[in-house]
Amino acid sequence: MTVTPGTPALHSLTFRLSYADTDPAGILYYGAWFPWMERMQSEWFYLNGLRQDQLLERHGFWSVTCHTECDYLVPVGLFDEIRIELRLGRVGGGSFDMVHQMVRTEDEVVVARALITLVTVSSDGSATPIPDVLREHLDRWAGASAAS
Amino acid sequence: MTVTPGTPALHSLTFRLSYADTDPAGILYYGAWFPWMERMQSEWFYLNGLRQDQLLERHGFWSVTCHTECDYLVPVGLFDEIRIELRLGRVGGGSFDMVHQMVRTEDEVVVARALITLVTVSSDGSATPIPDVLREHLDRWAGASAAS
Amino acid sequence: MTVTPGTPALHSLTFRLSYADTDPAGILYYGAWFPWMERMQSEWFYLNGLRQDQLLERHGFWSVTCHTECDYLVPVGLFDEIRIELRLGRVGGGSFDMVHQMVRTEDEVVVARALITLVTVSSDGSATPIPDVLREHLDRWAGASAAS
Amino acid sequence: MTVTPGTPALHSLTFRLSYADTDPAGILYYGAWFPWMERMQSEWFYLNGLRQDQLLERHGFWSVTCHTECDYLVPVGLFDEIRIELRLGRVGGGSFDMVHQMVRTEDEVVVARALITLVTVSSDGSATPIPDVLREHLDRWAGASAAS
Repeated sequence: MTVTPGTPALHSLTFRLSYADTDPAGILYYGAWFPWMERMQSEWFYLNGLRQDQLLERHGFWSVTCHTECDYLVPVGLFDEIRIELRLGRVGGGSFDMVHQMVRTEDEVVVARALITLVTVSSDGSATPIPDVLREHLDRWAGASAAS
Repeated sequence: MTVTPGTPALHSLTFRLSYADTDPAGILYYGAWFPWMERMQSEWFYLNGLRQDQLLERHGFWSVTCHTECDYLVPVGLFDEIRIELRLGRVGGGSFDMVHQMVRTEDEVVVARALITLVTVSSDGSATPIPDVLREHLDRWAGASAAS
Repeated sequence: MTVTPGTPALHSLTFRLSYADTDPAGILYYGAWFPWMERMQSEWFYLNGLRQDQLLERHGFWSVTCHTECDYLVPVGLFDEIRIELRLGRVGGGSFDMVHQMVRTEDEVVVARALITLVTVSSDGSATPIPDVLREHLDRWAGASAAS
Repeated sequence: MTVTPGTPALHSLTFRLSYADTDPAGILYYGAWFPWMERMQSEWFYLNGLRQDQLLERHGFWSVTCHTECDYLVPVGLFDEIRIELRLGRVGGGSFDMVHQMVRTEDEVVVARALITLVTVSSDGSATPIPDVLREHLDRWAGASAAS
């Protein structure tokens, strides 16, 4: 995960951990970050006109998540307030990484980092180079980080 | 993920994908595997007398998930029946990997693979070598796989 | 909820409560039953050829949940094994109730009861009498209960 | 559900519906409201010093959800922005209702209404009249609504 910590986030979502996010010890359980990442990242694509459920019909391609990983750095617990930040990571010819950083707002400590790798596929499901319409967004998102 | 595919699973759970597991295209969304992994793996530890919420009190240590990763190999969709299989992966001095394999039961195709790394910690939260009580279980679980 | 307790269930699903289902005290939290009900009831309709996401296309109608309610009778906790049972409840001209009963398998105690009311709607979203294809299923399901 | 629509909410939470909240038709599925209600209501009690997981230790009582119900008034779908509002409903001798109202922010239409009934219990799990520390909060919350 090669994102420079200081670069501004593309998008973020702030929420408080609740019962459904934590185990009986009141500690976040490892699966809890993923629905939040999905929610925030889907909203980012939606706000950029890249609504996942309409990509194929409107642009003739589709994106598929092929890999996720997450490092749990600091334990967090019930009622901690968290900000999930989204940044663009590595961009390749037919895939790209979205990097998620979980920050405890009380002290701005990064408590977890995750990476989601997406590949672009054509209507028949086979891998396809990143189409121009998406490439333009990725270039702009990369610029947003580089400029900081 | 170094598990030999042919080794028998330690534990498994079979279920059918439903609306909560899938996106509007009816395709499983990437976060959906994690609650199933958590559910099945927690049950395995529970059935082995290693109930996570009583480890500290009963045995003076605790296990913490420090890393997860998942590879999505084949798209699966609404109402597909899936069997999640649990195996032991790498075992180190103070950490070990549990390997999860998601199999579509209709044709026995492996549709996803995931890995969960746990570290053992003492009551003050600092890393500690894997305690004997847990080591004995891991040795037996490794034997179960090696013997196949 | 007028279902006679002794009637056989149309369908059921057995599972063990895990971290995601319980609060920090290890007690089931009230929202946890609903995903299980959805999962089991959707499977039942699917197994009867009434796949919810294809109803409109195949049969020209759609069903919509307009009301849910749940009574929590006995506290249950982490690692309790539960069987959710599905029965048909009241059937009206344009709506019907599916009744869910949550049973702790260890002692067969009913720990919760829930009811889901569905209405049938036509393609324009307006209420429509229960179509024949569905009415035949409901009659058969009612017979299954009455015959017990 | 006897709450006057015009009374101000005690607490609220705004979010956008995402894949996990919706079915393959992109319509909210009936279970999706409950985790949001739990999250928001738990935060409200937490912000009022009534942290659910510490009630017993600090105040000698506990609250248990004994009933929930929800009416689905207007279909909502993927990416709709929703505001959940919390109000106090009926207060009895040993129980009280929290009323949740789901509002689509785009046009301020109430799309769903739900009610959660809680009973107060003592440390042995038996029903107990609402203790003073909680009664004072309920009186203030009732006043907040009545004063509007």
